[in-house]
Amino acid sequence: MRVDSKVESDPLRRRLRRISASERMEEALGFIRQFHREVAGSRGLEVRLKEVRQSLRRTGTYEHTPEELAFGARVAWRNHARCIGRLHWRSLEVIDRRGTREPDAIATALFEHIRWAQGDGRIRSAITIFDPVSPGDLPPFVESRQLIQYAGHLRPGARVLGDPQTVESTRHAAALGWRPSGGEPSRFDLLPLLIRSAAGQRSAHPLPEGLVREIHLEHATETGLGRLGLRWYALPVVSGMILTIGGLEYPCAPFNGWYMGTEIASRNLADERRYDLLPEVAAALGLEAVDGSLWRDHALTALNEAVLHSFQREGVSIVDHHAASEQYMEFARTEEGHGRTPAGDWTWIVPPQASSACPVFHLDMQPRTEVPNYYWSRAVDGDDLCLWRDHEDHSKWWFRAHRIRHRVRRWLRTKGE
Amino acid sequence: MRVDSKVESDPLRRRLRRISASERMEEALGFIRQFHREVAGSRGLEVRLKEVRQSLRRTGTYEHTPEELAFGARVAWRNHARCIGRLHWRSLEVIDRRGTREPDAIATALFEHIRWAQGDGRIRSAITIFDPVSPGDLPPFVESRQLIQYAGHLRPGARVLGDPQTVESTRHAAALGWRPSGGEPSRFDLLPLLIRSAAGQRSAHPLPEGLVREIHLEHATETGLGRLGLRWYALPVVSGMILTIGGLEYPCAPFNGWYMGTEIASRNLADERRYDLLPEVAAALGLEAVDGSLWRDHALTALNEAVLHSFQREGVSIVDHHAASEQYMEFARTEEGHGRTPAGDWTWIVPPQASSACPVFHLDMQPRTEVPNYYWSRAVDGDDLCLWRDHEDHSKWWFRAHRIRHRVRRWLRTKGE
Repeated sequence: MRVDSKVESDPLRRRLRRISASERMEEALGFIRQFHREVAGSRGLEVRLKEVRQSLRRTGTYEHTPEELAFGARVAWRNHARCIGRLHWRSLEVIDRRGTREPDAIATALFEHIRWAQGDGRIRSAITIFDPVSPGDLPPFVESRQLIQYAGHLRPGARVLGDPQTVESTRHAAALGWRPSGGEPSRFDLLPLLIRSAAGQRSAHPLPEGLVREIHLEHATETGLGRLGLRWYALPVVSGMILTIGGLEYPCAPFNGWYMGTEIASRNLADERRYDLLPEVAAALGLEAVDGSLWRDHALTALNEAVLHSFQREGVSIVDHHAASEQYMEFARTEEGHGRTPAGDWTWIVPPQASSACPVFHLDMQPRTEVPNYYWSRAVDGDDLCLWRDHEDHSKWWFRAHRIRHRVRRWLRTKGE
Repeated sequence: MRVDSKVESDPLRRRLRRISASERMEEALGFIRQFHREVAGSRGLEVRLKEVRQSLRRTGTYEHTPEELAFGARVAWRNHARCIGRLHWRSLEVIDRRGTREPDAIATALFEHIRWAQGDGRIRSAITIFDPVSPGDLPPFVESRQLIQYAGHLRPGARVLGDPQTVESTRHAAALGWRPSGGEPSRFDLLPLLIRSAAGQRSAHPLPEGLVREIHLEHATETGLGRLGLRWYALPVVSGMILTIGGLEYPCAPFNGWYMGTEIASRNLADERRYDLLPEVAAALGLEAVDGSLWRDHALTALNEAVLHSFQREGVSIVDHHAASEQYMEFARTEEGHGRTPAGDWTWIVPPQASSACPVFHLDMQPRTEVPNYYWSRAVDGDDLCLWRDHEDHSKWWFRAHRIRHRVRRWLRTKGE
């Protein structure tokens, strides 16, 4: 572990939701009620409400029981409007690491998370939860957006070597003494974990040799594609999001599911601001990259096939966008069956490949932003989050808010004359 | 022409925007100011404002000059957040047919529109505008969603033959005595125009023999695809939308552009609720339609290629989704250059094929709903339309409305406790 002593001021505080004490109280009591309604039954509810109320009044915070924490993390997933894979929300394994505060111990716990979630290739969804924010205490957190990431090497006058998305993290890691494990920079160098301590110091923790499972990408029939030397890691572990449950913010709560193929093939490897590989893939396929031909569409489909084929070949969990869409439809039906309307953000749920051939394309969705949930920062998505009334009332409330917004707009318009 | 005497009550009235007299006044004066700001200059503005104000007060309506009408129709296009092809908004040809009220005369004018817009294959954008709604008068209008459409024949116990979207129109046409031109129902039978007169009577007007240009679909290399006998018409003329300019509603204002390939290939021919042809196309391509393989993605790309290739072969205007995306980016830049932020509905602008490889996928858009504009009905999109302040103020107003909506939501939430 190397430590950086140049510390900027409060990067975490700027990302946390701003809610008042009364809003926190409201979210806390609302969450406790929901936990008892859905899981624990009415027994003990009043006692627990009183306890939480008193603790919040006296200390400004309260402590979740392990059962509340586990339920909260799962419901936060269920509520997250941008995720297509929520059918499996109940199966999330919750690893309670509250009290672990030393960066080295955090890193060790997260390496353990990776090992367990990867398993033998049948990936298991898990979340490891560390300390929440409390008055006067900003706990340590992971600065990396994902636990496993490839470096982006900035080369003057040339394209970024690796993933342009991680150029800043790569610079931070290099400043802490990190060097690519192969010596020379390459396209697929695993970055160390960057952790920021409670005291605000950044440290780098290289992923142990042999920990991370990576998949070499090849296509079942297009052999040229396999010669490009492309690969990707098996396990997406999002570590840059803040988990909010019952008015408490958990800024260090890395979680994983498994990949949908398009995330790797259509976005990470293909986006112009990421690996931008479509021209290279097209060349490997012998396609002429000219305007007016759909070479990008062919390259995308081949790259998607290569990713799915390679993961399946190695027995590593992955889902294609058609199957993921079907699973989302099942999730939506199941939720409706429980009297809940799932929140869905169409722009995120609909896959970026063969979109209109996926059933979710034709589904009406409400992009509700309900706590518990996961968010990046208040500027992006955090300040939109709020508590909704009883789940029976969702559609009614949605409708009323919508109508009132409408009236406000008309009123604004009139006032402006 | 055959006439149906069984008339339902006011299908048009139920679709018109509901705005008060003062809102109409506001939109009228706002539009006149915009016309003078962008086109006519300040000379004559005050006189015209006074004229319009007086006319609205006395009669509840007013008359657009031909120049105002042309400008309004073009700006309505520029404002329409769902259209990717707005780069060419200035080139819209406006055909002023106010005063033409007999269904037969309307049909003749629209056949003329089709002939002119189709030209020699280089399609020209045009709109033909008939009478607006005025107090006590619901003018005649076209009931068909598009001037050119294929029939959908309902067959008991079997799939719809043709386009499932037009089953109702096909039934209406049949009730008026229409029969497919080939005698037997087929997959691509051109429907007659359905026009509803001012008196509320529906009539059917067959498209003259030889008027409509249709393109037989074949693929440059996949010969199996050409043997499916697929085709599509060259000219999309939307006739189901209402044009609103300066507080006046024009319910009969069919307009056309040219096709983007995905509209035909990825939606009309591929959607499960439309022609649902992917399995058939996959079979023609020799693809195995099994779960876990991306056969749909391959079939979609091939079908898109076939559409583009066939239109190009016949010299008929069409744009692929990549080029259309580039044109939209240019439109957005041009608009910004004029100090305007274009309204954009991401869910409509982003093509349903190779989405993330299109630059518009990565563009931030504001789905503003501003008059002048085109809309289907008040229940769908009409009641969202409103007048925005001076174009300089767009972003500020947007931001304020957004913040206030936010406060309203919080307030709603608190009230609900």
